[in-house]
Amino acid sequence: MSIAVIYGGNRPDGNTEMLTKLATQGVVVEEIYLKDYLIEPIIDKRHAEEGFPEVNDDYNSIIDQILPHDLLIFSTPIYWYSMTGIMKNFIDRWSQTLKDKKYPDFKKQMAQKRAYVIAVGGDDPYMKGLPMIQQFQHIFGFMGTTFEGYIIGEGNRPGDIKQDLQALSAAEQLREKLNNDLS
Amino acid sequence: MSIAVIYGGNRPDGNTEMLTKLATQGVVVEEIYLKDYLIEPIIDKRHAEEGFPEVNDDYNSIIDQILPHDLLIFSTPIYWYSMTGIMKNFIDRWSQTLKDKKYPDFKKQMAQKRAYVIAVGGDDPYMKGLPMIQQFQHIFGFMGTTFEGYIIGEGNRPGDIKQDLQALSAAEQLREKLNNDLS
Amino acid sequence: MSIAVIYGGNRPDGNTEMLTKLATQGVVVEEIYLKDYLIEPIIDKRHAEEGFPEVNDDYNSIIDQILPHDLLIFSTPIYWYSMTGIMKNFIDRWSQTLKDKKYPDFKKQMAQKRAYVIAVGGDDPYMKGLPMIQQFQHIFGFMGTTFEGYIIGEGNRPGDIKQDLQALSAAEQLREKLNNDLS
Amino acid sequence: MSIAVIYGGNRPDGNTEMLTKLATQGVVVEEIYLKDYLIEPIIDKRHAEEGFPEVNDDYNSIIDQILPHDLLIFSTPIYWYSMTGIMKNFIDRWSQTLKDKKYPDFKKQMAQKRAYVIAVGGDDPYMKGLPMIQQFQHIFGFMGTTFEGYIIGEGNRPGDIKQDLQALSAAEQLREKLNNDLS
Repeated sequence: MSIAVIYGGNRPDGNTEMLTKLATQGVVVEEIYLKDYLIEPIIDKRHAEEGFPEVNDDYNSIIDQILPHDLLIFSTPIYWYSMTGIMKNFIDRWSQTLKDKKYPDFKKQMAQKRAYVIAVGGDDPYMKGLPMIQQFQHIFGFMGTTFEGYIIGEGNRPGDIKQDLQALSAAEQLREKLNNDLS
Repeated sequence: MSIAVIYGGNRPDGNTEMLTKLATQGVVVEEIYLKDYLIEPIIDKRHAEEGFPEVNDDYNSIIDQILPHDLLIFSTPIYWYSMTGIMKNFIDRWSQTLKDKKYPDFKKQMAQKRAYVIAVGGDDPYMKGLPMIQQFQHIFGFMGTTFEGYIIGEGNRPGDIKQDLQALSAAEQLREKLNNDLS
Repeated sequence: MSIAVIYGGNRPDGNTEMLTKLATQGVVVEEIYLKDYLIEPIIDKRHAEEGFPEVNDDYNSIIDQILPHDLLIFSTPIYWYSMTGIMKNFIDRWSQTLKDKKYPDFKKQMAQKRAYVIAVGGDDPYMKGLPMIQQFQHIFGFMGTTFEGYIIGEGNRPGDIKQDLQALSAAEQLREKLNNDLS
Repeated sequence: MSIAVIYGGNRPDGNTEMLTKLATQGVVVEEIYLKDYLIEPIIDKRHAEEGFPEVNDDYNSIIDQILPHDLLIFSTPIYWYSMTGIMKNFIDRWSQTLKDKKYPDFKKQMAQKRAYVIAVGGDDPYMKGLPMIQQFQHIFGFMGTTFEGYIIGEGNRPGDIKQDLQALSAAEQLREKLNNDLS
């Protein structure tokens, strides 16, 4: 089993990253920081005769990075009660890949993967972050990806997450689980 | 009363735009197509000493356009069970404006506005679009904006929305309401 | 096609009933008022050796009434952001019927039905009623019942619903649809 | 600080009860098993001239038991993606107490309390139990009660909960927290 972590935040050493690092400490993972890539918003050509145009950005290279892995961890700060715009643009582009002849098995490959979500927010995330979890449920449901679980954490100022014992403990448990799965 | 419509889609004449046009037919509105602007993702500097940097894009000009209006209509196709990445990047940047000395009354001004959401999706939007509605509820709740209502429509291929009688009827009703409010 | 309406309210001529009557005006429906029946809460014996006991109440007679119908309309006031306790007790008992030898095809029969939900609430039902809609989605999803749609209305004092033009219009549309389906 | 636990399940030694007992082990709590009481469904007389009638059941005695406590733990199995019908009938009756001259300060008293929810379900509760959590959020929001947190657990057959390490760990943490609060 191999693991990729997709980071959607853009603050270095943010709370979400900290929590995700704890959950993956000592585990071999490929880390992808979406903020380091150029990802264009989708131009919706699903129903255009000419189809989707080639896009000259880094999106496909990220897809190439994640496809070989069995387990994907989506790590996103909760901005405005949802995933970050960067991560949303990344996922929006899946609609293009689903029609891309270069990736004829995209959906099938994603359907063989398992996924976790790790998300930290500052405004009552254990309540107000739930619609976002439900969206990931629908996203993974569409792709056939197994949604294994999620960790919500609370934090605003840098380092706040260290006070959220519930999140820390959930991260510890995920780490043990990942280690067991890998061994 | 004056009205701004914020379009989050990027397909010309898409279903969401069609439905929104029906709801605002004959009503004087300022239309803002986010796809025509450059909106950088937020660089989260809320807690950085140096604060947010100036961003050289079109975001502030959009804020300047919407602030004079009393009612905002957020019109977004439902991509992956949520607003489009473009619209999400736009809203993410509000965090910056909330700290921007050029907009000292941003929250107060937004709190005096009313808002509608119009959203069309292709995969069971009346059910799977509900988490997105709940997110808008939290977003407007945070800003103090009055969330007056929403219209969900179903459609996938261009023009599909014309078959969704429930959505068309809701759009008609909104149009009457807007006309009454304006007169 | 034949239709049963399951009323979960207990106020005569309440707003939910009024809206439901409008949606079914001129349509032949079998009406079941749960408040007129004795429905015991479930005693959970799913995993007990002895199994579920016979319950001496009216529950089975209601099941017998609804099973012959093709379309079920669940009509419930929104009490505390959910269906009424009476209707919940009714649905809780389905767990018993699923194990009841007298109803070996209960799930299969329910899976052939279509369902609507009509619900009226007084505290921001278009927002705060959405979790209840999601629960019905899960309930029907489990049974395989096709969830055709829902109407939410706003009302508190008797007759308030007459002011909710959106709900009235949705009820009209459902009525037309039911008439078309029946003819 | 004093604590009351309100049990909504009706299976002795069910998974929800087991998890709740773990969370309150060694903590002085008053335990209320709703199944041991007669709680009539509400007869909605909020808008009737004559008002609510006296109801000859055990409901008021339960209210009398919980009102002196500072923290309420609502412990309910997830039946059909929501709280049990028994617990729903109990909460539905709050509408009556809100108008009851014998309890003129009901809302004010509830607004001074804190609440937890512990819920165990068998069908993907970490996802499909979320609408129920959102309902509790709205319920406590209406009353002004502080919603301190919730624990979701997964289990179907008796004892299953012992396999849900995440739930067990959350229960341990709550227990520590309750002990700290009490000391």
